[in-house]
Amino acid sequence: MRKIIGRPGSAIGMSLRMGQCGFAAASIGVMVFTRGFTGYSAFCNLIASMGLQLLWSFGLTCLDFYALRRKRDLQNPVLLSLFVVGDWVTATLSLAAACSSAGVIVLYTRDLDACTVQSHLLCTKFQVAVVLSFLTWVLIAISSHVMFWILAST
Amino acid sequence: MRKIIGRPGSAIGMSLRMGQCGFAAASIGVMVFTRGFTGYSAFCNLIASMGLQLLWSFGLTCLDFYALRRKRDLQNPVLLSLFVVGDWVTATLSLAAACSSAGVIVLYTRDLDACTVQSHLLCTKFQVAVVLSFLTWVLIAISSHVMFWILAST
Repeated sequence: MRKIIGRPGSAIGMSLRMGQCGFAAASIGVMVFTRGFTGYSAFCNLIASMGLQLLWSFGLTCLDFYALRRKRDLQNPVLLSLFVVGDWVTATLSLAAACSSAGVIVLYTRDLDACTVQSHLLCTKFQVAVVLSFLTWVLIAISSHVMFWILAST
Repeated sequence: MRKIIGRPGSAIGMSLRMGQCGFAAASIGVMVFTRGFTGYSAFCNLIASMGLQLLWSFGLTCLDFYALRRKRDLQNPVLLSLFVVGDWVTATLSLAAACSSAGVIVLYTRDLDACTVQSHLLCTKFQVAVVLSFLTWVLIAISSHVMFWILAST
């Protein structure tokens, strides 16, 4: 097995997972505390996707922590296949949710110019939640590529 | 180099590229001939992304055709790296554009229920264009993973 930066059971790998947890939790937090989000399917979907991402990344953070403490090697083909599939599914869902929410926000801010007219839309908070979900996706995309590379190169 | 199904310079690889070209062209065609699409940034972005996808996939279809006719091997690390980067960028942009357009369509059809009220929105045509762009993404995602796997396993 190659020693690639960000591999499971390494400090950088765990940092990536912790970053995913942090940004996903922050995205959910900002969205949930923004009035009126329930009226938009895209924003509800963002919360669901970020929730799934949070659970997945938190589980893998704990696994990385355990591996670091006990000096265990997590790079066996069965575990790696599970990580690859899980990372790919959650990364795709995160990007899809972030983009669909971004599509709605662009529609309101740019196409309909509704954010300046209707202050109750609280566009800025929605934008912050979407930016946080994109940051989550960047980190899960890195983890996903590292896992896929390690699995393919075994 | 491994002989993986869908590799560059193979009949299946070329079929995947042709499928990407076909679905991307069909998505652009349906969107362009739907009245009122210019008022939505997400739909304009979909056309731009599908246009880029069409150009990229058409170029690689020609390259695959050339390799098949002349029995050339396209699996060298430099070419593969180029394919991996190009496929990943176009796949991500295609998914992002498809999802942002889908977000706008879901907003109109489900959240605002505007499609039954305002017939001029021509929602069905927009939906068809988005479904075609998702099919393009499925095919480019397969090509992208095949390229990444071959590059990583060399």
